[in-house]
Order: sequence, then structure tokens, then C-alpha cells
Amino acid sequence: MPPRIVEVRRNVLAKNDALAARLRARFAEAGVCVVGLVSSPGAGKTALLSETLRRLGARARVAALVGDLATDNDAVRLRTSGAPVRQITTGTVCHLDAAMVEQALEGWDLTSLDFLFIENVGNLVCPASYDLGEDLRVVLLSVAEGEDKPLKYPVIFHGADLALITKADLAEACGYDEALARRELDAVRPGLEVLRVSAKSGDGLPAWLARLGGAAAEKRAAAPV
Amino acid sequence: MPPRIVEVRRNVLAKNDALAARLRARFAEAGVCVVGLVSSPGAGKTALLSETLRRLGARARVAALVGDLATDNDAVRLRTSGAPVRQITTGTVCHLDAAMVEQALEGWDLTSLDFLFIENVGNLVCPASYDLGEDLRVVLLSVAEGEDKPLKYPVIFHGADLALITKADLAEACGYDEALARRELDAVRPGLEVLRVSAKSGDGLPAWLARLGGAAAEKRAAAPV
Repeated sequence: MPPRIVEVRRNVLAKNDALAARLRARFAEAGVCVVGLVSSPGAGKTALLSETLRRLGARARVAALVGDLATDNDAVRLRTSGAPVRQITTGTVCHLDAAMVEQALEGWDLTSLDFLFIENVGNLVCPASYDLGEDLRVVLLSVAEGEDKPLKYPVIFHGADLALITKADLAEACGYDEALARRELDAVRPGLEVLRVSAKSGDGLPAWLARLGGAAAEKRAAAPV
Repeated sequence: MPPRIVEVRRNVLAKNDALAARLRARFAEAGVCVVGLVSSPGAGKTALLSETLRRLGARARVAALVGDLATDNDAVRLRTSGAPVRQITTGTVCHLDAAMVEQALEGWDLTSLDFLFIENVGNLVCPASYDLGEDLRVVLLSVAEGEDKPLKYPVIFHGADLALITKADLAEACGYDEALARRELDAVRPGLEVLRVSAKSGDGLPAWLARLGGAAAEKRAAAPV
């Protein structure tokens, strides 16, 4: 990369980190558990989030922000769950940043929420560099993408707290080798927690919802009294 | 985007365009047909390229450059076709640029080739902005990614000459609606040529190879005598 763009990028990231820290403090004060979802395009973020909002929404107060270059299709799709959803349209920008999240939250009373989900632009590279103040960053990998993605896109796995293997219902049709995928995940990020889900069949969703419940409980335990 | 980064980005892109024009002239002089492949991670670029090198290599002189953030797994995999392959490892950079291609070609006699394939980093956003001097830019979309990707990632489709719907063998398992996908492609980029292939079953590969043959013939016809 040319030295000048490296320098500008460093400044942009430092500014983003400061904004993300401000967001994190605001989320902590409001007591809302914030979960970021990152993946390739088409790994099933929206399908998973749709099921998550529907199921978790029956027993908790949930909402979502969703990023895309163009269209508000995902927001429209997610709103059928009944949860409040706001779309962030990035134009040509390949990731969400903390400033976009802050702007999208304007006028939103975060104390009215237990969970806020932030679905990033579909991109396995660029979102890795931008902290959004989340409590939990989840990287999704569909079985249709192949087992080798962690080795080829390591940075986003380094920054994740949890990996979800998605579209598990297609595993057989894809000849997916889950043991190999888990070995490669472990090589890139030793000890990374991995869950396997299918938004279509519902397999693995109870474990995913329990994991979210655990994150929220941790957050409440850490909150100032 | 902050104004300063917009300005720096504009300069970087202008420099890339100039380098890409130089590459294009060099490719024309050598009489090599250059084909760029762009897609999401896991859409099947390497599987398609592997079959393409193997089949086309039986009757033409083929070679490939392949980009990834990390590992030379793809180059190793592609070399089993017998074609010369060079890996470009980008580190944290989310796309190939013309300078990386020029550097990777150092010492390579392009007049010894009929086809050079350039497999980009898996990313449906950032590679759109970087011309690599290709004759034909091909965007791949797997049936597992869903039908809505053209609407959500329009820029990369605007810059493509051909769309390949890949992993056609999984269409039924994924409940893929090809008519819908083609309507959405046509809405974003009216008249864009679309082919449907499966590197696994071989379906559609003869039409794809014929299309490549056509591109090479066009190039030869346009070449200075």
C-alpha cells in the first residue's frame, strides 16, 4: 500500500476506535448486549438474524441495524419479525464503521433494548478493521463456502469471539468436511468457540440463543449497579 | 468517507487506471487474452479455474495469477492442472491492483500464452474499483449465495462483462430461483451475459470454454498485424 494511504488509514482507524469506545460505554450504560455479525455475502446473516429476532423476540427486547451497499431489502425482510430495524446504506463503502452506527442510533432509546444486532456489509476482509463497540463479534461461514476460508481470510477470524457454521442443512450436498473446517479454524484462532446452525431447519438455534443469553447475563453482571 | 481519504483514494485509483492501461497494451502486444475472475469468498472461483485450466490447457497455452490475503493454497491447487500459476499474497489488502499484477508478471514471457486468468481476492465490493487490464471481467455468483446479490452489491456487476452462476449442482438443494436471479441481474446491469455452470458436474463448462474461445478470437482479430 502507498505510504500516504497507510498513514491516512491509520488515522481513520484510530478515530474509529475512539468512536467505538464511546459507543461501547453507551451500550454498557444502557445495559444492552450488542452482537455484530460479519461474513461473506450470502453466508446467511440475514436468514439467521431473522430467525434470531423472531425466537429471541418472544422473550427479550431485540432490535437490529443492517448494513448494505444498496437497497433496504434486508431491513424490510427483518422487520417481518416485528423487531425495530434500521438500514444503513453505505453506497460504495465496503464495511460499517462506528460513525455510521452512531448516526443510525440517533434518537433510539437503547435502555428499551436487551439485544441490539448489527449486521455488517457482506465482506470477509474489510469489516475486520472496524470495531463497532460490540460485546460479541460473530463470524459466519456457510458450509457452501468451503472449509478453507479461515486460512485465507485470517484477520476477520482473529477479531471474532464466536464462529457460526451456517447452512448446516446443505452440508451433505456440499460434501462439507466439518472436522477439517474446525481444524482450520483452530489453526487460525486456537480455542475459538464454534457453533453449527441452520436457520432453515432450526438445527443448532437453541444453542445459539443460549449463547446469546449467556452474553447478556455476563453484561448485566458486569454493569455498574 | 472523510474528505481526505476520498482524495487519497481518488489519486490511488487514477494511478491504478494508468498502470492498468499499460498492462492492457502489454497484453495486446503479446496477443494474450486476459480474463479476470471476481466473486465473494467461496463462490467457486478456484474450482472453476482449476477445471478451466485443465480443459482449456489441452488445446491452448494457459496460465494464472491468483490473489489471496494469506496462504498459497490456491496456487498449489491450480498447479495440479499442469499450468504455470503464480500466487499474489496481499496481506490485509482486500483486492488486487494493477501494480501487484505487474510485479507478479515480472520475468514472464506473455507471448508464450494464449490465456492468462487472474483470480482476485474473494470480495464482492473492493475489487470493483481496480482495473487490472483484463479483456474480460467475469463475476461469479454461487447458487448458495441467494438471488439478491446483484441488487445489494451493484458496483461489481456494473463493471463485469459476463456473470457466471456457479455451483449449479446445488441449485435444487438451495431452492435457488434462477429466473428471479436473472431478473435481478438484468435490473442492475441490463443485457449482461449470463452463463450457468457447475465445476463439479461439468454442466455448462462447454459453453463457458466456447465463450473464452470467442474472446480470444476477438482479441486476435483486433491485434496489430
